[in-house]
Amino acid sequence: MTNVAASPVSPASSAAPGEGHAPAVSAGPAETPLGFGVGARITAAVMADDFARILVETLSHLDESTLVRETGDVSTYVGGHEADLLRWLTDLGEALARTEHHVALTVHLSRGCPGEVDCELPGGAGPRRAEVPSRRRTGRFATAEWALYPLADQVTADGTAPDHMRDIYAAIDHARDLGTFRGSEHFVTRLEGDVGDVLATALAGWMLVGRGVQHVTSHLTLSLNSPSHEVRDLGQEAR
Amino acid sequence: MTNVAASPVSPASSAAPGEGHAPAVSAGPAETPLGFGVGARITAAVMADDFARILVETLSHLDESTLVRETGDVSTYVGGHEADLLRWLTDLGEALARTEHHVALTVHLSRGCPGEVDCELPGGAGPRRAEVPSRRRTGRFATAEWALYPLADQVTADGTAPDHMRDIYAAIDHARDLGTFRGSEHFVTRLEGDVGDVLATALAGWMLVGRGVQHVTSHLTLSLNSPSHEVRDLGQEAR
Repeated sequence: MTNVAASPVSPASSAAPGEGHAPAVSAGPAETPLGFGVGARITAAVMADDFARILVETLSHLDESTLVRETGDVSTYVGGHEADLLRWLTDLGEALARTEHHVALTVHLSRGCPGEVDCELPGGAGPRRAEVPSRRRTGRFATAEWALYPLADQVTADGTAPDHMRDIYAAIDHARDLGTFRGSEHFVTRLEGDVGDVLATALAGWMLVGRGVQHVTSHLTLSLNSPSHEVRDLGQEAR
Repeated sequence: MTNVAASPVSPASSAAPGEGHAPAVSAGPAETPLGFGVGARITAAVMADDFARILVETLSHLDESTLVRETGDVSTYVGGHEADLLRWLTDLGEALARTEHHVALTVHLSRGCPGEVDCELPGGAGPRRAEVPSRRRTGRFATAEWALYPLADQVTADGTAPDHMRDIYAAIDHARDLGTFRGSEHFVTRLEGDVGDVLATALAGWMLVGRGVQHVTSHLTLSLNSPSHEVRDLGQEAR
């Protein structure tokens, strides 16, 4: 049987015990970001006639020495350590905001299910614990909508079910601590604030839930320089 | 305890038995699209200097008489019957493609978890079965990346666990039938074809998995009129 656990059309719960998945990575995959499938797909839509030049120029100035990057026509994949991902995403968000063009930045985070057609990690390989990286403030404002999905709901090797709610409340509390939480709308949580804080909120929530669940994805859409945003003086908001 | 099951920072598995959720809708919520939380959030990023005029004009020509719509600065929410959603999305995708501008269209589908701050449907209210609506071909080409998430993994009222895999394979087979399936990349399934077929693939997969699972979300990003797309004669692809 084809294992489609890495495919988006499957939850990691498809990696059920006894389905005969052979782990394709060596012992301790949770210790290696790429072995654990830690990465993001981003789509940066610059709403300007010369979007291509602006995007290429913006990307060329980012330090991606610690990341794997593959560019496609729908999105760009970046893989690597969580702290490097947050740094790169914050640099990207700041650079896009500084163009002063209206930009829709879509960020799709995933952990715990690496591979191409097949998921190369069986259930129970994780979760992976990593320190939540520090945010970096940019002085640029964003509004955003955020969805966070704990998948891989199976009972762990020691027979206990993961406590999603504990981790989810931790993620919400973290968003409140960062000052980005604005409430819930249909299907999403509304975030607002410094681009760096908004990105850090999503990364942290994804990592905090990832302490109890192997396969966690998150989708964040940021709006930068929207004509409907009032002028915001982030300096006055800084605590 | 606040029920955050409707929040994106929660899986519907939070609607665990015994947590005391009071259903806020009358009997048979699965029969009512809005009662069941059937809807989408879309972000249409037109990569042109006059993006605002183009988007407003495009939206003004769509028939939304059968849908609820709320426009925000990050995305637009539409709620209603699955068939009306697909019709509206197909009209939108075609209209955006006909502008000849490069557009990134992000579609976030959700079912089984209505509400604002709180999820108003307890686990076990669904799943909702509905006929997969007919696709409409537009003559316009799109590439896309697709993620599909069955949530609400709890055992149903009759004590049986939902069979995700059966439904997921049905979704994949349906994508192959529509001719849009191109394989898997990191975290997503690659789709290509007529805008109408690509949207119908995502809608159908989401509905097919929704036959066995109450809470199902799906995220689709389409690229229209990409400079990296070769000229495609969709008429010759039509079967």
